[in-house]
Amino acid sequence: MAKIEHVSPLAPERFPDLPAIKGASFAAVEAGVKYSGRKDVMLAVLRPGSVVAGVFTKSATRSAAVLDCQAKIGSEDSAGAAILVNAGNANAFTGSNGESSVMAVTQAVAACTGLPETRVFTSSTGVIGEPLPHDRITAKLDDLRDSLSEDRIEDAAEAIRTTDTFAKGASKSVSIGGQTVNISGIAKGSGMIAPDMATMLVYIFTDAKISRTELQSLVSDLNEITFNAITVDSDTSTSDTLLVAATGASEVEVSSASEDFKTALHEVMRDLAHQVVRDGEGATKFVEVKVTGAASKADARIHAAAIANSPLVKTAIAGEDPNWGRVVMAIGKSGAAADRDLLSIRFGDVLVAENGWVAPSYKEEDGAKYMEQQEVVVHVDLGLGDAEDTMWTCDLTHGYITINADYRS
Amino acid sequence: MAKIEHVSPLAPERFPDLPAIKGASFAAVEAGVKYSGRKDVMLAVLRPGSVVAGVFTKSATRSAAVLDCQAKIGSEDSAGAAILVNAGNANAFTGSNGESSVMAVTQAVAACTGLPETRVFTSSTGVIGEPLPHDRITAKLDDLRDSLSEDRIEDAAEAIRTTDTFAKGASKSVSIGGQTVNISGIAKGSGMIAPDMATMLVYIFTDAKISRTELQSLVSDLNEITFNAITVDSDTSTSDTLLVAATGASEVEVSSASEDFKTALHEVMRDLAHQVVRDGEGATKFVEVKVTGAASKADARIHAAAIANSPLVKTAIAGEDPNWGRVVMAIGKSGAAADRDLLSIRFGDVLVAENGWVAPSYKEEDGAKYMEQQEVVVHVDLGLGDAEDTMWTCDLTHGYITINADYRS
Repeated sequence: MAKIEHVSPLAPERFPDLPAIKGASFAAVEAGVKYSGRKDVMLAVLRPGSVVAGVFTKSATRSAAVLDCQAKIGSEDSAGAAILVNAGNANAFTGSNGESSVMAVTQAVAACTGLPETRVFTSSTGVIGEPLPHDRITAKLDDLRDSLSEDRIEDAAEAIRTTDTFAKGASKSVSIGGQTVNISGIAKGSGMIAPDMATMLVYIFTDAKISRTELQSLVSDLNEITFNAITVDSDTSTSDTLLVAATGASEVEVSSASEDFKTALHEVMRDLAHQVVRDGEGATKFVEVKVTGAASKADARIHAAAIANSPLVKTAIAGEDPNWGRVVMAIGKSGAAADRDLLSIRFGDVLVAENGWVAPSYKEEDGAKYMEQQEVVVHVDLGLGDAEDTMWTCDLTHGYITINADYRS
Repeated sequence: MAKIEHVSPLAPERFPDLPAIKGASFAAVEAGVKYSGRKDVMLAVLRPGSVVAGVFTKSATRSAAVLDCQAKIGSEDSAGAAILVNAGNANAFTGSNGESSVMAVTQAVAACTGLPETRVFTSSTGVIGEPLPHDRITAKLDDLRDSLSEDRIEDAAEAIRTTDTFAKGASKSVSIGGQTVNISGIAKGSGMIAPDMATMLVYIFTDAKISRTELQSLVSDLNEITFNAITVDSDTSTSDTLLVAATGASEVEVSSASEDFKTALHEVMRDLAHQVVRDGEGATKFVEVKVTGAASKADARIHAAAIANSPLVKTAIAGEDPNWGRVVMAIGKSGAAADRDLLSIRFGDVLVAENGWVAPSYKEEDGAKYMEQQEVVVHVDLGLGDAEDTMWTCDLTHGYITINADYRS
């Protein structure tokens, strides 16, 4: 991967102030897994009684760490939990060595924190197919444990970056029955991002008190309309992991039926998903693709994905070209139901096409002016039914080629 | 579309000498549909008794000309036939005006050539969504008719180019029962190229004597392993059209069971399909993706397409990076059956990965050296069964972005 020289023009001004989550402590160190001169390993430790829910990549070639997390995620244990993440090496497609590395790290974390191995979750992100030098990680575990603090989540967000140009964090505090529940999350990801997954790496923490099964149900549902609704380049990572941990330390009980909590969690997840897109490799535009009037929800998603993944649509947006013909092309190829003569296309509020042709009111200069925006909404109404869906993506630029065509080493 | 300044580095040295097809005459003119200073309309006229077979895009938003061709392709008529093609304007997503334009052109061609309207096939290629100035075409029909010649197929190949950097032709002569049958074809296409289609525009002519239904059967079968097996950018055109016409003028009778004829037609179709990839927008590498050991033919195609369409695989090839991790990623995301620990990956003859990890014999410098080739073979063996499939694509470079991110006008 190429050296990152510029922060994404779509980056937030600064890392947000995330409220500390009682019962969740963080630390990060320089372990030199691949990068030098920066923190590249994070550790989060959750107090006894915490529950953890997760969603993982569906890739058939997923990494050893993902397989290990999946095996553990459904178990219940009051002993607390730990999450250890390294950047720079994905430990994916590393055969039996990959499994040995995961085991070495989880055993060492368990020994260092006093937690059972089954409560240690790990993720690795970075280059695929190189052996993970796990000794460099285990050598730093005591340092990590000794610097654990509820205030260090930003360090953790920094440590999990690879081609990311900024660290990603989001939070929400919600009042439930007069008491405050906090949710703070971090994410990494900017390439190899596509739906049918649980994004790159995302870790969200809350002090709410909720059962594991209720939390898992909430997270799985919300994942569909947040991390599974983003795409940078249609490529799906082997390491995608979303973990949500509830420490219960607020003593505020919530369930999957708690609308306020669900809304707050949704907002944190969507915010982080959008930040991943805003840090899409080479991105200069943030694009919302909205499909309405579809015959079914599934059709709406298929059309939205076809538009959001089309290299021709994405290069047109990069060129600030209101090229609605390419949107028509993407709808046509998607395979889902569409009727050329019923669909209408809007760029923002500008009606571009309707009834199978350019709208009589449309002026090219209006479209061109709109496309100069840094945030662009492409809205297609299919005119067939009531179903709708929204996805988010970025444009496809020379920056993407530069980042990904550079020689690996 | 950006101005084409350079001929693709993958272009053949020159346009091939195509044998004249008895009974098939060609002409091309400057009609100024969009381009100036170049021929942009071609006419082919086929003698009475010719049969025509075709395959068309499956896009739900296909163009008026495609719909018109599809309505006519199954009919039989001994009156001969005409094919008229313009470049510069696709007449797609142009509503009822699009149909009027097709009708105006086909009626005028019929009147000019003395053929029934049902025997006039048209195609349009170029920008989507702008009205076709069909008067500019019909104004030139007499000129076209007056210059028809069996020797002018190269002019026709030149006239149908849009972003193509070279004109594409291929031919094969085959001896059947001591007599010679000729096949000559032309094609255009370099962007918006993806499987699930019948390529961009392809016209193939033969003097063989064959029934329409036998020819259609051959063409449909061969299309699957030629034009439907190429991809430039995963985007599917609204105008893709393949027409194959047999004039019968050689008096050599063939059928779908004639192996020699089938092989010759296959070679011409594959040659043209490869030339479309060699002229892929921004292409610097010609890539063959071969998948063997799949559980089923369908699975082999799904894996091959996932690899051939992956932006991360294609940018790695552009960067001459033997990044087999991205090949693993593409297999993982494809959704078809794969077992990480059974698959092996070769770049050319270099065994890169096997048994779920990098091959012990693999040296990075061997992989890097191989990737410097202009023609690259990526071979994945899944180790699951006996099914296989091959697709062809090109790399993804800055050139693709430059061509497609430039403002339309």
